[in-house]
Amino acid sequence: MTQRIDRQSEGVFIIAATPFASDGALDLDSTDRMVDFYLDCGVSGMTILGIMGEAPKLSGEESARFAQHVLDRVAGRVPVVVGVSGAGLDNMARLSHSVMDAGAAGVMVAPMPGLGTEAKLRGYFAQVCSALGPDVPVCVQDYPQTTGVQFSVETILQLTRDHDQIVMLKHEDWPGLNKLSRVRDESGTADTPRLSILVGNAALFLPQELQRGADGAMTGFAYPEMLVRVVARHKAGDVDGAEDLFDAYLPMVRYEQQLGIGLAIRKEILHRRGVLAAPAVRAPGPSMTKADHAELTRLMDRLDRKLADLG
Amino acid sequence: MTQRIDRQSEGVFIIAATPFASDGALDLDSTDRMVDFYLDCGVSGMTILGIMGEAPKLSGEESARFAQHVLDRVAGRVPVVVGVSGAGLDNMARLSHSVMDAGAAGVMVAPMPGLGTEAKLRGYFAQVCSALGPDVPVCVQDYPQTTGVQFSVETILQLTRDHDQIVMLKHEDWPGLNKLSRVRDESGTADTPRLSILVGNAALFLPQELQRGADGAMTGFAYPEMLVRVVARHKAGDVDGAEDLFDAYLPMVRYEQQLGIGLAIRKEILHRRGVLAAPAVRAPGPSMTKADHAELTRLMDRLDRKLADLG
Amino acid sequence: MTQRIDRQSEGVFIIAATPFASDGALDLDSTDRMVDFYLDCGVSGMTILGIMGEAPKLSGEESARFAQHVLDRVAGRVPVVVGVSGAGLDNMARLSHSVMDAGAAGVMVAPMPGLGTEAKLRGYFAQVCSALGPDVPVCVQDYPQTTGVQFSVETILQLTRDHDQIVMLKHEDWPGLNKLSRVRDESGTADTPRLSILVGNAALFLPQELQRGADGAMTGFAYPEMLVRVVARHKAGDVDGAEDLFDAYLPMVRYEQQLGIGLAIRKEILHRRGVLAAPAVRAPGPSMTKADHAELTRLMDRLDRKLADLG
Amino acid sequence: MTQRIDRQSEGVFIIAATPFASDGALDLDSTDRMVDFYLDCGVSGMTILGIMGEAPKLSGEESARFAQHVLDRVAGRVPVVVGVSGAGLDNMARLSHSVMDAGAAGVMVAPMPGLGTEAKLRGYFAQVCSALGPDVPVCVQDYPQTTGVQFSVETILQLTRDHDQIVMLKHEDWPGLNKLSRVRDESGTADTPRLSILVGNAALFLPQELQRGADGAMTGFAYPEMLVRVVARHKAGDVDGAEDLFDAYLPMVRYEQQLGIGLAIRKEILHRRGVLAAPAVRAPGPSMTKADHAELTRLMDRLDRKLADLG
Repeated sequence: MTQRIDRQSEGVFIIAATPFASDGALDLDSTDRMVDFYLDCGVSGMTILGIMGEAPKLSGEESARFAQHVLDRVAGRVPVVVGVSGAGLDNMARLSHSVMDAGAAGVMVAPMPGLGTEAKLRGYFAQVCSALGPDVPVCVQDYPQTTGVQFSVETILQLTRDHDQIVMLKHEDWPGLNKLSRVRDESGTADTPRLSILVGNAALFLPQELQRGADGAMTGFAYPEMLVRVVARHKAGDVDGAEDLFDAYLPMVRYEQQLGIGLAIRKEILHRRGVLAAPAVRAPGPSMTKADHAELTRLMDRLDRKLADLG
Repeated sequence: MTQRIDRQSEGVFIIAATPFASDGALDLDSTDRMVDFYLDCGVSGMTILGIMGEAPKLSGEESARFAQHVLDRVAGRVPVVVGVSGAGLDNMARLSHSVMDAGAAGVMVAPMPGLGTEAKLRGYFAQVCSALGPDVPVCVQDYPQTTGVQFSVETILQLTRDHDQIVMLKHEDWPGLNKLSRVRDESGTADTPRLSILVGNAALFLPQELQRGADGAMTGFAYPEMLVRVVARHKAGDVDGAEDLFDAYLPMVRYEQQLGIGLAIRKEILHRRGVLAAPAVRAPGPSMTKADHAELTRLMDRLDRKLADLG
Repeated sequence: MTQRIDRQSEGVFIIAATPFASDGALDLDSTDRMVDFYLDCGVSGMTILGIMGEAPKLSGEESARFAQHVLDRVAGRVPVVVGVSGAGLDNMARLSHSVMDAGAAGVMVAPMPGLGTEAKLRGYFAQVCSALGPDVPVCVQDYPQTTGVQFSVETILQLTRDHDQIVMLKHEDWPGLNKLSRVRDESGTADTPRLSILVGNAALFLPQELQRGADGAMTGFAYPEMLVRVVARHKAGDVDGAEDLFDAYLPMVRYEQQLGIGLAIRKEILHRRGVLAAPAVRAPGPSMTKADHAELTRLMDRLDRKLADLG
Repeated sequence: MTQRIDRQSEGVFIIAATPFASDGALDLDSTDRMVDFYLDCGVSGMTILGIMGEAPKLSGEESARFAQHVLDRVAGRVPVVVGVSGAGLDNMARLSHSVMDAGAAGVMVAPMPGLGTEAKLRGYFAQVCSALGPDVPVCVQDYPQTTGVQFSVETILQLTRDHDQIVMLKHEDWPGLNKLSRVRDESGTADTPRLSILVGNAALFLPQELQRGADGAMTGFAYPEMLVRVVARHKAGDVDGAEDLFDAYLPMVRYEQQLGIGLAIRKEILHRRGVLAAPAVRAPGPSMTKADHAELTRLMDRLDRKLADLG
């Protein structure tokens, strides 16, 4: 029986890369390895076909094939959320129904660009929910750095009140710590249903966000074991220990958080760690220079030494 | 006794240019001529130090001197609104109090860039009203093409409910006809005070906007007599005649409406019409090419012929 | 034998709507009627699957089917350009090759958002040309209002020098009259090949643009006969007559030029003129209010009267 | 004799806050304390009236008074750069000449918003240099996150070739490591004069940037001693030691780097460290919540402990 995301979902939903061969074709062998790697790291869930998954560069047929392949490999062990953002509601509904039928746990929707007022934003999500139908759980992605669309706390709370199916917030407004605090404090109240809040933005503020009440992370850091352990320690009450571990990785978190080039870095790390056969990014996309490669080697070595020091 | 703008203000508030000599200095002789020209055209009011008035290119001292000069020349015959938008509330309050003391009828405030949610926008105007004090009537400028900030109808209505001193809307969102209709219909009701609505955006849709209930125009077209006559005809019930007259000028309205270069065109026309000694725009600013000059001559000639045909 | 667009292409390439039934399905009967209508109006070419063609709201399969249907109906009588802009070069190449095989005359490419420097912009088009291969003629769409990407004249000239297949510019930067003059004057020289320049931006400045050397228009005005006659008169040397005719339509050109709602207006006019069975726009998309409908009726009536007066 | 910035300038130019009393007035006592604090930290220079210095919120008179006060207190011990960005070249020239006469070492200029092509950007800096005259050394601020204007490497190199007075780059494009490498490698060559490159963006990548050839930092981190020591260690050849020290502060660097709220955090830290009498930010501006205060306390404590561990 497939698990659906809900208002209590927590832990680490890793944002999965989409593996390509050097010639740009979908690499399903690497996909299998990647799914197994994420599961071995202890993730609570997976999110595919997000912005970092290069979704807009796949054809419709490739998206469907990749989603099916991941869902089959995961085989219900953890919930899988599928990014379905796009320009037209027909396409969004079609893809959503297809992946839900195939076993997805919910869909993630970022607002389309140009929704410049909150009235428009609320109208848009009403249209989305109506197009998807009430049986598809939705994670709302609040990511103004990329979409140009800004949510107020009031709008987020309104969305969770108005739509039973909006159960999760991918929080990656930046800076956004006080926004997170407010959504946490002002939902789960008498009149506003609780939202699951998973943080994105490369987890740059993960300890602070957990301390402010986040339920976990939804991001694609290439060392998912760190995310899993930090969230676990925090939930076990070891707040300082969680932050100590995080801080050890922070130089790398910061490095991978670079918009654009960050995707190439992430894939390169997954390649070096034996997960992806090739670090290929589809065109047009970022690529690493020789200096980047040397710098990454240096940062990976420093991380290894620091982890060894921590014991 | 100075007239203040209020919720019933109507007619044509011409957006005044700021005249410069060829060497860039303030040209107060041309300012006198311009004020007289506007009054002779029959305007109901004047707005100075707006974006088209090159306000950010004046020093604080120049702004104060220019405002004082215009106010003295107008001598209370029509209300004068002064643009005071800027980054800091201290500066805004200082300038506002200074011009109100000198006889201004109110101030115009556009939101500062970066107010990406309506919650922030409402918070900003609360701060502005508090900084200005309750005795300064405010015209809110809704001009997202330049500020990047978008108002929903709900926010505009909230502002007029929350702040007695917000009495006027400079409507220049684009496209914005339905927004205008909604603000008109949903203010002046039992719970929401009426707003005076003057339209900007170079008056490109003036007849449609009057038909939808605008109270007039606040824009800087270099043939103010057209604006005055169109509004007068419309108010006299000659809706078709108003639109016929407007359409005769439409090729020129469209030409002057070009963002950026439009300012140079406007000053050039005022120069050719004998109002400004020089068409100078302060640097950095647009300038007209030889082709532009020839094109403008052609358009002015065509307008003259069309007006002659109309009789 | 299929005609390809080239550096001498001229006339009116009408931007075709994509007809939908009231339930949102592709309406191929209306498509036939629309193609016949455009051809009867005397257009020199057609452009499909552009932004106004709601391309991002079609599935891949629908795009291919619609393109094939239009190409079959046109049957080589005029060249058909296909919009192929998108996030990934693989998808772009796949669609381009498919439509070229089906008889298209070339493709139109707007830069993807985020290309903030001209160096990146030139790099992008180099990638595009390489992905498409040298046999696919390209029309570059310069439309910063929608893409957020700005071309300098220097970059446009560089593109036409660097890539034999870049043969046409869809000029719709705004304001852009001097840019058009410069591209016209500085291409077709000893070192820079000529570009065909067709103007967009709803043709708001068509007479001025023709006077500055444009080869025609590529836009979707719902009265294509005006575009065709204005371009023809102008080319026949009747510059004033061309502008007189245009000015008669200008109130409607201005009305249809409204970003967003303009698409709904255009489809409504085509519906009222008997071309489209339904004026449907796919969600999320603009719709007309009752006031809009009345306003459009009024503007259409005024246009009819003015055309009757012109004889 | 006043020192001017030049193409060899290096070290840490601290971005100075502008101290205000709780009532918002300029606080010149705190200013003295702050200048002394910075000098005690060992900074190589100071930059005042930048964006972080809330320059747009000062009146012209206040800016002049504050600059004069800082210059007097510094008394030539280190070079002082003054931010002069603004909408009008007349104001910019007036302020620049006034501060240069008072002993400034140069001025910093960020491009005004809206310069969407590099051709326009180069034209703008040509106008700026002409307005300032050749005797005013210029630091170009490349900060697209705030200005919306993007420089390519080619444009930066062109500026340093075209204008003898453009001697320094404040590098804070993001992500920007490869851009920094290229500017470093491609300037100081036979045909392109060397540029001093100081990094901003809150120093989030300071070790990487030094390793790629930056000459130092120009940013406002509230622990300037870290910046000074990291740069010194790096220049002394202790590359790893420099990075170790930096990484200890990285959780705080990351925290202070938050756009907007970062200014309030920075002033609060300077207040807690006894430098500023009040942490006041002028309206409209960010303020810290109770949760922010607690979080900052926690981060400051963790930093103290980590520094104690480092010995």
